[in-house]
Amino acid sequence: MSQPYNRVYNFSAGPCTLPVEVLEEARDGLMNYQGTGMSVMEMSHRSAAFEGILHEAEANLKELMKVPDNYRVLFQQGGASMHASIIAMSYLKQGPKPQYITTGTWGQKSMEYAKVVGELDEIYSGKADGYRCAPDFDSLPINPEAAYAYFTSNETIQGVQFQQDPNVAATWVCDMSSDILARNVDVSKYAIIYAGAQKNQGPAGVVTVIIRDDMLARVPENMAPMFDYRVQAKNDSLYNTPPCWPIYMCGLVYQWVEREGGVSEMNRRNKEKAGLIYKAIDESGGFYKGHASQEVRSIMNVSFTLPDEALTERFVKEAEAEKLDGLKGHRSVGGIRASIYNAFPKEGCEVLAQFMRDFAARA
Amino acid sequence: MSQPYNRVYNFSAGPCTLPVEVLEEARDGLMNYQGTGMSVMEMSHRSAAFEGILHEAEANLKELMKVPDNYRVLFQQGGASMHASIIAMSYLKQGPKPQYITTGTWGQKSMEYAKVVGELDEIYSGKADGYRCAPDFDSLPINPEAAYAYFTSNETIQGVQFQQDPNVAATWVCDMSSDILARNVDVSKYAIIYAGAQKNQGPAGVVTVIIRDDMLARVPENMAPMFDYRVQAKNDSLYNTPPCWPIYMCGLVYQWVEREGGVSEMNRRNKEKAGLIYKAIDESGGFYKGHASQEVRSIMNVSFTLPDEALTERFVKEAEAEKLDGLKGHRSVGGIRASIYNAFPKEGCEVLAQFMRDFAARA
Repeated sequence: MSQPYNRVYNFSAGPCTLPVEVLEEARDGLMNYQGTGMSVMEMSHRSAAFEGILHEAEANLKELMKVPDNYRVLFQQGGASMHASIIAMSYLKQGPKPQYITTGTWGQKSMEYAKVVGELDEIYSGKADGYRCAPDFDSLPINPEAAYAYFTSNETIQGVQFQQDPNVAATWVCDMSSDILARNVDVSKYAIIYAGAQKNQGPAGVVTVIIRDDMLARVPENMAPMFDYRVQAKNDSLYNTPPCWPIYMCGLVYQWVEREGGVSEMNRRNKEKAGLIYKAIDESGGFYKGHASQEVRSIMNVSFTLPDEALTERFVKEAEAEKLDGLKGHRSVGGIRASIYNAFPKEGCEVLAQFMRDFAARA
Repeated sequence: MSQPYNRVYNFSAGPCTLPVEVLEEARDGLMNYQGTGMSVMEMSHRSAAFEGILHEAEANLKELMKVPDNYRVLFQQGGASMHASIIAMSYLKQGPKPQYITTGTWGQKSMEYAKVVGELDEIYSGKADGYRCAPDFDSLPINPEAAYAYFTSNETIQGVQFQQDPNVAATWVCDMSSDILARNVDVSKYAIIYAGAQKNQGPAGVVTVIIRDDMLARVPENMAPMFDYRVQAKNDSLYNTPPCWPIYMCGLVYQWVEREGGVSEMNRRNKEKAGLIYKAIDESGGFYKGHASQEVRSIMNVSFTLPDEALTERFVKEAEAEKLDGLKGHRSVGGIRASIYNAFPKEGCEVLAQFMRDFAARA
């Protein structure tokens, strides 16, 4: 069965598949957006049309995530890595050393960025066991007085995902880049949630920052305005020219999520989709081995290995021939990684699961 | 005469008009880019297809600007304001205080960002006369040993443009956001040229940084990797996920500039286009008054005033009815601003000039 526009099943870890309907909408308005006589790419960020796009995107994200009134949603320049730095620059020195929980590559990198700023405590590291696990929050020596406590809710490379929000009090800062909008989150448990757009929100080039009012108030005085969340909030993400097109695309994706049934429905679909692939792993008699421990398996990134390197290469090559694209795992884990974010269709997971069974049988 | 797709003449100061051909190309590849089976927005930044896009854009910009071999071209996250901060964070303390030349709002802002980092010398300010002038470089007390010397080549709000490259030696840093690719520049005169994309290059969300090798070597050790040009150069602008779509669009614009005859042809057209509007100002018998001094008039942004506020409002409103959009001047200068970057068609300048004559006659 072929996909519309002769598209492939794109298992890329991000940037990644966007909903076909959203792309069609972007295409159809590209020469002249809703009678404005111009593309969204050509629109002054101070125009009523663009301000409408921005504020609607903000309102839609707030609604989808049930963001409480004492939080602000900001659309910021840069990527998640940049904001890992900005957060450390802003808050690391405000109180006892921040506590970092690292369950994979992105948590590790964010911690390294923070170390450039000052000292911190790594209170959990999954490194020794190759990043296969995630701890229960209440098993950790959390200091509620620490400057903040940091974790990555879903590690895209290792496919390790926290299964719940923190259940102990702390100034929680969470990089939710790769599972925002994929499961219901109680935003009130967090001080800051931030997420690069290029997984579940839109194209690369914008970061959403959901930040509690008291964290805005705590931004130190000597921050450069561009990196000052208080300045950004005061100016409604329009302190200077924002990445207009990526924001517009995020807005279209938020509307699509809403139309499809919201975050709960995304979660139901993601569990079902991931379940198809994990089933193919678990029923392969050990031919495929999942990287993450069963209880923390990601519903966004399914990382698994094959018996050897030659089979892995053959798997990737033969999959590509069937239009299953982007399956090669990250070099640090090896094997295969199937990233199946919100917009990735269930049918693609079915096709992959069948391909896995066929491949194991003939290999 | 109506424009294709019922588009308006978009005089916005940026984001701004892009070439119709470029938009068509983006639209036509939006569902499936060149047989890859996906949009550029959905493409892994580590894929061969995207690396091709990135490296071609880099090569094209180098060729268009005749960038010498001892410079690197980087495509960076953020906007020009962010890089004004990053440059100060990187270099301000390396040597005697940097020297700032401020000929308008953007230079002023960049200087304010630098002051967050440390001390500097403002060796020229156009503020007292309302930013109408730009100095001759060789009339200034330039210290070639200073950490760097900073200026904004074209001030979009005031419409004040330097007419030549610096003719005295210094570590020149230039914000060229609004006139890059609009005139020939001798890159070898500069240590760093940087430019937000959203005027002459593409949509908002990416900044091009053209940086000399010795400046890369001088990045201090304690910079956050995201703000470290050396790290960014070493990783060919792929240290982390770049703003892929804005970079792709810039690449299409570079190709368009090349097809149309390169920077010299852009410059010829821009002079001609701006000349049409300045002529309408100068022949209005004082009804219209240009903001900038004659000798530093910008070929990118034509700022002028009308006799009073009521006439200005009426001008904007009646112009809009004729599909002349985005002409309202910045509140700090008032009046009218016609931004006519590379992609703005000559015909739109003719229509505006005629409208100006008609309006003055009936007002």
